[in-house]
Amino acid sequence: ALEGNEEELIKLLGEYHASEIAILFSKIPLESQKRIINLLPAESASEVLSEMDFEAHPEELLLELDPERRQEIVEELDYDDATDIIAQLDEEDQQEILQDLDTEDASNIRNLLSYKEDSAGGLMNTQLIKIYANMSKKQAIDEIIQQSEEIEEFYTVYVVDESDTLKGIISLKNLIKAKASVKVADLINEDFIYVKAQVDQEEVADLISQYNLTSIPVVDDDMKLLGRVTFDDVIDVLEEENTEDMLKISGVSEDEELSGNWQAAVKSRLPWLLINLVTAFLASSVIRYFEPTINHLIILPAYMTIIAGMGGNTATQALAVTVRRITLSDLSDNQAYSTVIKEFTVGLVNGAVIGLVLFLVAFFYDSNPMLGLVIFIAMAGNLIIAGLAGSTIPLILKRIGIDPAIASSIIITTFTDVFGFLLLLGLASKLLL
Amino acid sequence: ALEGNEEELIKLLGEYHASEIAILFSKIPLESQKRIINLLPAESASEVLSEMDFEAHPEELLLELDPERRQEIVEELDYDDATDIIAQLDEEDQQEILQDLDTEDASNIRNLLSYKEDSAGGLMNTQLIKIYANMSKKQAIDEIIQQSEEIEEFYTVYVVDESDTLKGIISLKNLIKAKASVKVADLINEDFIYVKAQVDQEEVADLISQYNLTSIPVVDDDMKLLGRVTFDDVIDVLEEENTEDMLKISGVSEDEELSGNWQAAVKSRLPWLLINLVTAFLASSVIRYFEPTINHLIILPAYMTIIAGMGGNTATQALAVTVRRITLSDLSDNQAYSTVIKEFTVGLVNGAVIGLVLFLVAFFYDSNPMLGLVIFIAMAGNLIIAGLAGSTIPLILKRIGIDPAIASSIIITTFTDVFGFLLLLGLASKLLL
Repeated sequence: ALEGNEEELIKLLGEYHASEIAILFSKIPLESQKRIINLLPAESASEVLSEMDFEAHPEELLLELDPERRQEIVEELDYDDATDIIAQLDEEDQQEILQDLDTEDASNIRNLLSYKEDSAGGLMNTQLIKIYANMSKKQAIDEIIQQSEEIEEFYTVYVVDESDTLKGIISLKNLIKAKASVKVADLINEDFIYVKAQVDQEEVADLISQYNLTSIPVVDDDMKLLGRVTFDDVIDVLEEENTEDMLKISGVSEDEELSGNWQAAVKSRLPWLLINLVTAFLASSVIRYFEPTINHLIILPAYMTIIAGMGGNTATQALAVTVRRITLSDLSDNQAYSTVIKEFTVGLVNGAVIGLVLFLVAFFYDSNPMLGLVIFIAMAGNLIIAGLAGSTIPLILKRIGIDPAIASSIIITTFTDVFGFLLLLGLASKLLL
Repeated sequence: ALEGNEEELIKLLGEYHASEIAILFSKIPLESQKRIINLLPAESASEVLSEMDFEAHPEELLLELDPERRQEIVEELDYDDATDIIAQLDEEDQQEILQDLDTEDASNIRNLLSYKEDSAGGLMNTQLIKIYANMSKKQAIDEIIQQSEEIEEFYTVYVVDESDTLKGIISLKNLIKAKASVKVADLINEDFIYVKAQVDQEEVADLISQYNLTSIPVVDDDMKLLGRVTFDDVIDVLEEENTEDMLKISGVSEDEELSGNWQAAVKSRLPWLLINLVTAFLASSVIRYFEPTINHLIILPAYMTIIAGMGGNTATQALAVTVRRITLSDLSDNQAYSTVIKEFTVGLVNGAVIGLVLFLVAFFYDSNPMLGLVIFIAMAGNLIIAGLAGSTIPLILKRIGIDPAIASSIIITTFTDVFGFLLLLGLASKLLL
């Protein structure tokens, strides 16, 4: 369909929403993206760019365009979207794009570029509707209608004083419902949620989600209104944070792009594997220490792998549940304590059940009940340690201010390997030789 | 602070948002929750209940209240929130609560209870603003103001015909901006996104997120307007789906409540461990088969644990990246193919680097260069298999319509255990004996 003549293609494109074209762009080469963007009206083109996932690299597409066309499209973009895209470019390319824009647009974007990308300031849009407290109902509605010409969607109307200090919010519904004689000051809601520009985006997302807000105002330290973050930005942040958590807990660096190339993936994952290699030598040295024991009882390695594997899996289970729980809400001391007790109990029960199965195998298949007993104790003990490690390590990391998700399964399974081998081989050397 | 006299407590509670009290409720016993709920005005009490996480069991609190107080609170709840809470109760308790309500409320809630909990119908709220296409601007605004008395927040005004068939949406902004002579029909936007009631909640969340909607209308098969789902419900759905994915990929049943007791956790996790036990016996039998080889070269178990551990970690990394990528967007055949090639390459490179480290250890520490060569080949081979398994298995599951996250690290590490042992011990028996 991308091959047809231009008129047909333009007609076809008209039937799709910008977000659908953005998804298409993640699957076709840059040259085809460029061709399509150039066929779209500037407004639609800007929507497509703003809907493109950052992993689809809208900034590369933007850079590919003719300067004039590029300027046209950037001027149609919301400031926050323009900033997000331009921020991905290096300094020189940023300047090249900004110098073509009109002074007001350029200075607005330069201003937004100065905030950290993952802060409220980096996430906010400076386009919003604001009115003054001393306006009448009629003045306020006229002002809102006029300001809304520039803005696609607005959800909240902000009330400020002469120096742009945020005084409160007002709902359009209440304004419409109000009698003609009412002033803005009478309708103002002064009990509202706001964030400072330097606040982390995760906190912004939590606030919007907790208080079911469509948007949240962003202010500086003097309560001067700087912009607003809307719920749709926050949905993106939540998905981003969830991706980072899932990567971290699996021992992948949080910045790895899901669709990145193999070089980037090696750079992101090899360091974690090398850390794990160091800890694996620990488990390995336990085995070396007990070499004489293994030499006497050559069946032991066949059980070692089961005990280590089960320990790793149990620790991973406890870790996932605990990390996810910490992510969704802070735990009180009591809750943290009862989480650890719970994981201890789960490890004990699961360890006893699986230990019993292995006892029966050792008894009937290997005809060695004493070996069965050693394996039973090692399995139960290892799964208890697995439950304790999987729950306490993320809880402790959280308390000392480190992201609990870095207690990845990679780190935690070493614990269970070392301890599992120590228990099994130590008991075997005492009881079976 | 919970101990003070009632007046002080009431004053204190007045300073908190409902969602803050809801968080407090997740940390205090049912008796204290009941005491506080009874001190709040019915409207605030209903907000607290609707903000409570389902894991905090608002339905248990509701059941604890006096019938009269309960009725008062349920009548203040939005129908969708009331339904979500009541749906957690058993049939008998549901009837007890519904019979106290007035007929209209009860029938609305009964109707909502008939939809599957995780469908658009189960998620939707039946309270919304709807107007008719033939209304004048003035009639429409009057109608909107009147209907909005009952509704906390509305984001979109729906336009229907006499038989409640959804014809389009209209933005309040455009209505206000319009000239007095304009009719609703002139402003109607007929190109809107909607969902059928039976659609899965995950799809509803994707639509709201993709098109940046504040709400989405829910219709039956004849386009009759049934209700709407709002963005705040969708944020909850996204968090829920993300929790399920993280649990599944870690081998925990997706229904396990994060704050559940140990009995529930054993029930959710033991089956996965038992499945893994079966596959662990496979890895174990590979070791048994090569017992004579190990007997000849007793250093082998010390290296086996490192090769198995690294394989498991590499597979987990590939799995997390691939599953997360599939979750966020469907992959084309080309993308799926290049994902697999990428993971193959990453496995090869990481395997070669780590294999080299182990080669050096075997060379210098164990003075056995031939053993080092075998270990190098086994490590590189195993990490290639790990990358391939971690990427192809979730991709295949997705193609045949199974949730890719169940290709949990538990399942996938067995692959690498079996293959890693086969490679290492097989090569050792050929080359080193």
